[in-house]
Amino acid sequence: MNDKVKSVVIVGGTHGNELTGIHLVQSWKKNQREKDFSDFSVDYLIANTEARTANKRYLEHDLNRCFKKIDLENPSLNSLEQTRAKEINQLLGPKGAAKTDFILDLHTSTANMQINIVLTRIDPFHLQLAAYLKQQLDNVVITSEIELMDDHHFLESIATRGIVIEVGAIPQGALEYPCFEKTQSAIEVALDFVSYYNHSNNDQVTLPDALDEALDLMSYHSKIVFPVDDSGEICAVVHPDLIGKAYPQIKNGDVLFKGFDGKDILYQGETTHLAFINEAAYYDQKIAMCCCRPARFSLETCLRVD
Amino acid sequence: MNDKVKSVVIVGGTHGNELTGIHLVQSWKKNQREKDFSDFSVDYLIANTEARTANKRYLEHDLNRCFKKIDLENPSLNSLEQTRAKEINQLLGPKGAAKTDFILDLHTSTANMQINIVLTRIDPFHLQLAAYLKQQLDNVVITSEIELMDDHHFLESIATRGIVIEVGAIPQGALEYPCFEKTQSAIEVALDFVSYYNHSNNDQVTLPDALDEALDLMSYHSKIVFPVDDSGEICAVVHPDLIGKAYPQIKNGDVLFKGFDGKDILYQGETTHLAFINEAAYYDQKIAMCCCRPARFSLETCLRVD
Repeated sequence: MNDKVKSVVIVGGTHGNELTGIHLVQSWKKNQREKDFSDFSVDYLIANTEARTANKRYLEHDLNRCFKKIDLENPSLNSLEQTRAKEINQLLGPKGAAKTDFILDLHTSTANMQINIVLTRIDPFHLQLAAYLKQQLDNVVITSEIELMDDHHFLESIATRGIVIEVGAIPQGALEYPCFEKTQSAIEVALDFVSYYNHSNNDQVTLPDALDEALDLMSYHSKIVFPVDDSGEICAVVHPDLIGKAYPQIKNGDVLFKGFDGKDILYQGETTHLAFINEAAYYDQKIAMCCCRPARFSLETCLRVD
Repeated sequence: MNDKVKSVVIVGGTHGNELTGIHLVQSWKKNQREKDFSDFSVDYLIANTEARTANKRYLEHDLNRCFKKIDLENPSLNSLEQTRAKEINQLLGPKGAAKTDFILDLHTSTANMQINIVLTRIDPFHLQLAAYLKQQLDNVVITSEIELMDDHHFLESIATRGIVIEVGAIPQGALEYPCFEKTQSAIEVALDFVSYYNHSNNDQVTLPDALDEALDLMSYHSKIVFPVDDSGEICAVVHPDLIGKAYPQIKNGDVLFKGFDGKDILYQGETTHLAFINEAAYYDQKIAMCCCRPARFSLETCLRVD
């Protein structure tokens, strides 16, 4: 027997200016889409209603960085979002002993992330779910945060299982149908998977078409910040050759930035792949892009096989 | 003799999350670009520093809607931006008797507006300037606000002369080199024109290459709002066929929106052109796009000739 998924929560508006998830959650709630699923409950949450009203990612702290267990248990953290994180943790968690079995947290990016499924844990459920999403949909890229931290700070980490579905490129504060449709399709496929999982006798899920033996994903390892001038202001932009690219490889000597004077600035470092290229949400930390490298995991053993 | 342009002010950050103008103004100021121009002064202004810090278009009121003369003279209007508008009016104006001869106000759009030069007045200076920008640069589109109001609410309206330079598509809160470069080129061409104007004996400016006899522009006349459901929430998105298009024509029966259910919603109305398609900044008013129609003005008489 596996540990069945009885309760699913679909979350929108963890970032208040990512409208796709907000409108998708509202639309599903209005159309009572939860009735489509018989063997588990589906509930909805708009996570940061204040930021949504302000049409901002967050007001005081990024809500999707507030869910480390150590922070949820720290009474001195009480900004608007830190308080909201604790409320959500009581509602859907608490982290470590959660009443919610699976959280789908909906995000968008101003970068071309395609349908990015973010994993914060590597286990049979998540690896097979990710592989099933890749099997069923085009342009799915699985990324992993597991190299970055143990006690994860994402909202979805408070449930027993969870993923982030992040579609882009789309500007903040706007809706576009392809982004809405891709997000919706990813949710539908993920919920189909949950149903197959619930009807399987053990952790190896029985699916109509067998999955590949291994899952290829991109594992985040570091970030690249913008060059700044002597007053701390950004003085170069992401090189036009990289804008709009999905997870390109970059190697020592490739173009990376372009100064306002038009001069190219070259990448110096080990070969890597780039994600979140020129993500508008990261300008507050002057992060120009994130770095990730391919990794391959066996679906049977959950171990790296590359 | 014409009325020479002695003082030019380049304004960025009238909207706090349109980074191109902010960084361009900072870059020009740092590099003392004002020294490149001998026959007029060039000064710089970051208009809404508070909104810039917050990375928002505005905090209480859209600053670029606060410059009607009647509002500038109304002591009861005292929100953050209304107060700031009065300060800027003292600094660069006052409107109607301004110490500034020409304001270039730098904006960006999340819609594909190309290099959009916005005119709020039709006279020999502005028509020839617009025609010169079209002659010198690719992808320049002249739009006119003159059908919309007399006492204009834009910041640039406080000077004797002024234009908005608005480049897109680019997300809010992000920088991209092509957008920076297009904005910079438009400024440089506009300042070249000022020099030619200052060296001409009358309002008909002597230029190296003669301008066309007439200027084609797009004149705004109305707006189209999003469909909403019974709770007032947006329930359809701009049709994917229109996303990314620059000033397309639309006629009765063409696709306009797509519901979250995937159903097309058709345009009903007179043939027109569309601008600011899915502009993120207009979601707060649920405006999906603006309507404009072609108009042709004689450069000699400043009268319509279409």
